Amino acid sequence: MAAEKNEEEEQIVTPWEVAAEKGGKIDYDKLIDKFGCQRLDQSLIDRVARLTAAPPHVFLRRGVFFAHRDFNQVLDAYERGEKFYLYTGRGPSSEALHLGHLVPFMFTKYLQDAFKVPLVIQLTDDEKCMWKNLTVEESQRLARENAKDIIACGFDVSRTFIFSDFDYIGGSFYKNMVKIAQCVTYNKVVGIFGFSGEDHIGKVSFPPIQAAPSFPSSFPHLFSGKDSLRCLIPCAIDQDPYFRMTRDVAPRLGYHKPALIESSFFPALQGETGKMSASDPNSAIYVTDSAKDIKNKINRYAFSGGQDSVENHRKFGANLEVDIPFKYLGFFLEDDNELEHIRTEYGSGRMLTGEVKKRLTEVLTELVERHRRARAAVTDEMVDAFMAIRPLPNMFN
Amino acid sequence: MAAEKNEEEEQIVTPWEVAAEKGGKIDYDKLIDKFGCQRLDQSLIDRVARLTAAPPHVFLRRGVFFAHRDFNQVLDAYERGEKFYLYTGRGPSSEALHLGHLVPFMFTKYLQDAFKVPLVIQLTDDEKCMWKNLTVEESQRLARENAKDIIACGFDVSRTFIFSDFDYIGGSFYKNMVKIAQCVTYNKVVGIFGFSGEDHIGKVSFPPIQAAPSFPSSFPHLFSGKDSLRCLIPCAIDQDPYFRMTRDVAPRLGYHKPALIESSFFPALQGETGKMSASDPNSAIYVTDSAKDIKNKINRYAFSGGQDSVENHRKFGANLEVDIPFKYLGFFLEDDNELEHIRTEYGSGRMLTGEVKKRLTEVLTELVERHRRARAAVTDEMVDAFMAIRPLPNMFN
Repeated sequence: MAAEKNEEEEQIVTPWEVAAEKGGKIDYDKLIDKFGCQRLDQSLIDRVARLTAAPPHVFLRRGVFFAHRDFNQVLDAYERGEKFYLYTGRGPSSEALHLGHLVPFMFTKYLQDAFKVPLVIQLTDDEKCMWKNLTVEESQRLARENAKDIIACGFDVSRTFIFSDFDYIGGSFYKNMVKIAQCVTYNKVVGIFGFSGEDHIGKVSFPPIQAAPSFPSSFPHLFSGKDSLRCLIPCAIDQDPYFRMTRDVAPRLGYHKPALIESSFFPALQGETGKMSASDPNSAIYVTDSAKDIKNKINRYAFSGGQDSVENHRKFGANLEVDIPFKYLGFFLEDDNELEHIRTEYGSGRMLTGEVKKRLTEVLTELVERHRRARAAVTDEMVDAFMAIRPLPNMFN
Repeated sequence: MAAEKNEEEEQIVTPWEVAAEKGGKIDYDKLIDKFGCQRLDQSLIDRVARLTAAPPHVFLRRGVFFAHRDFNQVLDAYERGEKFYLYTGRGPSSEALHLGHLVPFMFTKYLQDAFKVPLVIQLTDDEKCMWKNLTVEESQRLARENAKDIIACGFDVSRTFIFSDFDYIGGSFYKNMVKIAQCVTYNKVVGIFGFSGEDHIGKVSFPPIQAAPSFPSSFPHLFSGKDSLRCLIPCAIDQDPYFRMTRDVAPRLGYHKPALIESSFFPALQGETGKMSASDPNSAIYVTDSAKDIKNKINRYAFSGGQDSVENHRKFGANLEVDIPFKYLGFFLEDDNELEHIRTEYGSGRMLTGEVKKRLTEVLTELVERHRRARAAVTDEMVDAFMAIRPLPNMFN
């Protein structure tokens, strides 16, 4: 009974499960404490702005990326003239990406442009094959489809290497996998990831695969002779367990610990209790949704913090803490003044939910339409170019 | 207490440990029962002789290869005109091989010549790196050195592909690793291999790596489009656990189960209680030993079944059951008549231990000298040729 009670009460955040305390929201302060990462504070954001001579990304200004590990050290090194590389990834489990999937890629593109650094993007088709019981072929097909969506985010091909595990694992990458695996006991991965004895050994074997790209020697065609290059990983905070493990191992292999910059979860339309559910298409807006789909989903499913009658709404105002249309605008409405205006007007009840939903519909329709056009322009040749094992001509300038 | 007693009493045979019951010899009948393999009986040996139109190898005639799994099915298929491929391997943990290491390779060469079939030889440099805590570079160096000894056994380069895991893992081989791993739970590998929670996850990840070469699709450059090709694995019986696992998994992946032909262990000079110990150079004769080393080792360390005085010896004869010089002759003296003569004369006491040791010294000196000459003739170019990823021109004829 005690265990059950505990399960219901405690929030769970692992790479495979995100659940808030019963009826509540994810408590990100608790998560920072539990994981042992640091809060991304205003002084660090100001420092990014200064170093990149550009305004900080909306995801920084609005606290979407809210936590980090050693990001300040990466900036220290950058200030001394040492570059770094970015590493992010995706498990290609679905055909179409939703807006939440775009968040790390949009932010990574900003980092790449702002710091002018190389980027590796791992598509863990092997992971999805093993976890979701997809065939190898289907996992590879999804990886390639997802690569198109990723490329559509605007990455610079002269600075970006996208790879799928099934294609790329081998050679120096595999050697790092072995070295990492040697440093991690079974008990340790059970402690970090919660595997059980009935889980297949593919799962147990996987953490070193996600860890390996954190080390520059996994990419000899990019970073040969640059073993001390630092790595910065933008990701959602549910991926932190992989990199806690990686950071434990790094010094034993003579590598820098990778630095992290971590985001909160993009909330479901139905409310901010976790991540979106792939099994419920109405819980998220997909980059393949039509303008009509978007309008319908927002109007029908987006959880509103507005009051139940216009009268009450005018009197008490909207509860912005739980209002999904306002939260989504916080991610995607770039104009700080307009967002502030909505906060005041909607929060005070002068603006109605319908007006906010209408504005969100415009913003997301434009975003999705822009993505669709960009993705349609991604040819197979472009995918091949991003995924080719080659030096990056424009890596550090 | 009960557990301790049990540990001391029961023989242990795993890929990493071979120990007889206290004070005794390995009981191969018990092993066959426990592992569930079949005895290689005379009718099967006769069938091999008939099918290959050649006398059976001395290791078959003398019962060195004594057990099998589905070898008869491989022969059934062969008789129908279907070829198969051979797969064997070595964990490159030491610079020089001893005579026991040569046994599977000498036998595999015989099989390759007799059946005219292709052969893949896996050098598990990754395994040794993980188990013996060698560096990647040292494991790779040992793999290449060992490849020279293997090539010196006389394999046909037009039918043989030697690969090291660090070099070759990736692509189709890696896909099979993932598919295999998906079918095996952690509890299962603990049951088979006895891993503990404090073992590192590299060990847990390894069994699919040794399993993968059992499936022809792991070698698209050799067996593309031949997914139903059967695989026959000559190995020492301590490797059986890997292939029990592989055989469990095979039908779920749509592959044939690999067949096995399994040898007993080559005994230590000090007596037949297990395999030789790498930590005691005087427990084995190495292919790098000089004629003087060989003579000394045999005279000083080879356990004799002869009696303690010439008088008693003439009276009672040698105990051939425990006599190491006679056992070694059983492996390496090709002449059946001479061996029979020694059995009668030595067993009855008419021949003395010194004479048998002298004959063994001649046989092994010649064998080691022949190996040394063959190995000296192995150039780096030849190693490259055997290890090149290429089609085998002379594969099935």
